Amino acid sequence: MKIKAIGALSATQPLEAMEISRREPGPHDVQIEIAYCGVCHSDIHQVRSEWAGTLYPCVPGHEIVGRVTATGEHVQRYRPGDLVGVGCIVDSCKQCEECEEGLENYCDNMVGTYNGPTADAPGHTLGGYSRQIVVHERYVLRISHPEEQLAAVAPLLCAGITTWSPLRHWGVGPGKKVGVVGIGGLGHMGIKLAHALGAHVVAFTTSESKREAAKALGADEVVISRSPEEMQAHRKSFDFILNTVAAPHNLDIFTVLLKRDGTMTLVGAPATPHDSPEVFNLIMKRRAIAGSMIGGIPETQEMLDFCAEHGIVADIEQIRADQINEAYERMLKGDVHYRFVIDNATL
Amino acid sequence: MKIKAIGALSATQPLEAMEISRREPGPHDVQIEIAYCGVCHSDIHQVRSEWAGTLYPCVPGHEIVGRVTATGEHVQRYRPGDLVGVGCIVDSCKQCEECEEGLENYCDNMVGTYNGPTADAPGHTLGGYSRQIVVHERYVLRISHPEEQLAAVAPLLCAGITTWSPLRHWGVGPGKKVGVVGIGGLGHMGIKLAHALGAHVVAFTTSESKREAAKALGADEVVISRSPEEMQAHRKSFDFILNTVAAPHNLDIFTVLLKRDGTMTLVGAPATPHDSPEVFNLIMKRRAIAGSMIGGIPETQEMLDFCAEHGIVADIEQIRADQINEAYERMLKGDVHYRFVIDNATL
Repeated sequence: MKIKAIGALSATQPLEAMEISRREPGPHDVQIEIAYCGVCHSDIHQVRSEWAGTLYPCVPGHEIVGRVTATGEHVQRYRPGDLVGVGCIVDSCKQCEECEEGLENYCDNMVGTYNGPTADAPGHTLGGYSRQIVVHERYVLRISHPEEQLAAVAPLLCAGITTWSPLRHWGVGPGKKVGVVGIGGLGHMGIKLAHALGAHVVAFTTSESKREAAKALGADEVVISRSPEEMQAHRKSFDFILNTVAAPHNLDIFTVLLKRDGTMTLVGAPATPHDSPEVFNLIMKRRAIAGSMIGGIPETQEMLDFCAEHGIVADIEQIRADQINEAYERMLKGDVHYRFVIDNATL
Repeated sequence: MKIKAIGALSATQPLEAMEISRREPGPHDVQIEIAYCGVCHSDIHQVRSEWAGTLYPCVPGHEIVGRVTATGEHVQRYRPGDLVGVGCIVDSCKQCEECEEGLENYCDNMVGTYNGPTADAPGHTLGGYSRQIVVHERYVLRISHPEEQLAAVAPLLCAGITTWSPLRHWGVGPGKKVGVVGIGGLGHMGIKLAHALGAHVVAFTTSESKREAAKALGADEVVISRSPEEMQAHRKSFDFILNTVAAPHNLDIFTVLLKRDGTMTLVGAPATPHDSPEVFNLIMKRRAIAGSMIGGIPETQEMLDFCAEHGIVADIEQIRADQINEAYERMLKGDVHYRFVIDNATL
């Protein structure tokens, strides 16, 4: 079956309309008509082969929401008509310790929603900038938000889980002081989720102009990280800092804000290295710098259910499919509050 | 009372014999005749003001063992004749969260055994390269090793606790695979302790020549870290790595050896930065790089008791006080197995 999509034919070409094929649903597959797909910065990296190894044609998109249109014979959990989502993962080995613990994101054989190995044509996975996708039920999430919020739910599948997983893993909740560095696609979700989890949330930004916006997202305090005075006032006070900034920057100004045994977790990998962090800052208070990558399927479902219960969605700007190249240019300038979401009906 | 000591009058002079004074024991003080004092690399940094801020005269030494000669009227736990030790800490605020948890090493007002602030003359603390010291009982440790092992117990007070504390904090024990990077004063204790705690211990060294020595210390395996093939065989397999190397080096070759959720803890701060660690290695498996600094008083006692029970001491080379400058030169060349200990009776 031919499916409408938008994708790139090479690293140097803009995205364009194309047709792709999808497999017929196997016994454990769910076929989904995609309603909306969020636009993640990773999509740009992948399309332009900035991480190397991109296979073309490249159809990005891993913040997928839509409605089930068909299910394989063994699928129990979903029925046609259900609202569902698909995130960054469409397959994994299902047998390793990570898969058994529901941390498929750390499986050595995790298959990404795009550019991953597959038996399907053309030999690599094609993502959510398309009208339809077929995914093994294990990697399909149930959405219980009201349907009118569906577009704004899409970014939860990557930006939401990428911030939720470390917030939960490092025990963010009532009585904890938590920093969120960067107020973009990831950071704005980090603020909303940490706030909803009951923590005292401090947002860090380089821009005075984002102060009010960060408060509106749920930050209890906003600190301009360029201000040594504002930073000094928070020394040794944080239980946890979620750092969403992928651009190279000085990590030390944040590590010194951690309490003893505090951790700063990075969810973005810079293209060129950060300045080497000062080891003494780690030693002095038994602090740690850690990393975290998206999240597992069970915790993604937990996050979606939590968001539905607490009325949390992303702040989005909805676009037509033919606006994608323009959207990329605006994202590269940081001109988005806070996530573009494609209306896949316009494909 | 005048006490014989060796110390430095400036950053550029060798250590020389000198006389210092000690306070009379206050109500909570323990007066100790020092039998032996280990020689830590920190002593050299401090004497030469390589960390800046050294106050002179500088009498280093924070691996102190000896016998109680007098006690203040409120001291309950020690009596004259007891074998005791003093490590890196001789005072702290006794009131903060860290002190209350027995983590005086992380107290903001921790007073080091040398070069720390004190009301005693000359206004800064003077360490264990001396015949006698007076210390508040809270910071005095009981030694239950046989007296003939006393010299070899001295390094436990810094090298021992600096490795014990992170091994315990990060849960090293049976069923865990643990790496120890560097086989020097700290590393050789790390290997002994991790082995005695029941872990599977892998020692990393750059020198083929240290292979047998590391096995003799208790390493189950020894890996030459310059060998990509040997390193590759251990990828994603470690629960914890204790990195004792303070010289700048490539951290990435070790982080990739950690399992998901593994931590590498640094106990040495390099004078110039390590190459900036690759963030992607942290993100991919939720790994962490952390730091740890010596240990608290209760855990130091726990370590000493554990070592006495398991017959663990440091491997030492005993020297006379007048050999200290020569010993420093040999330490700078890495020519020591694994710790010099001064016989303070030669002062």
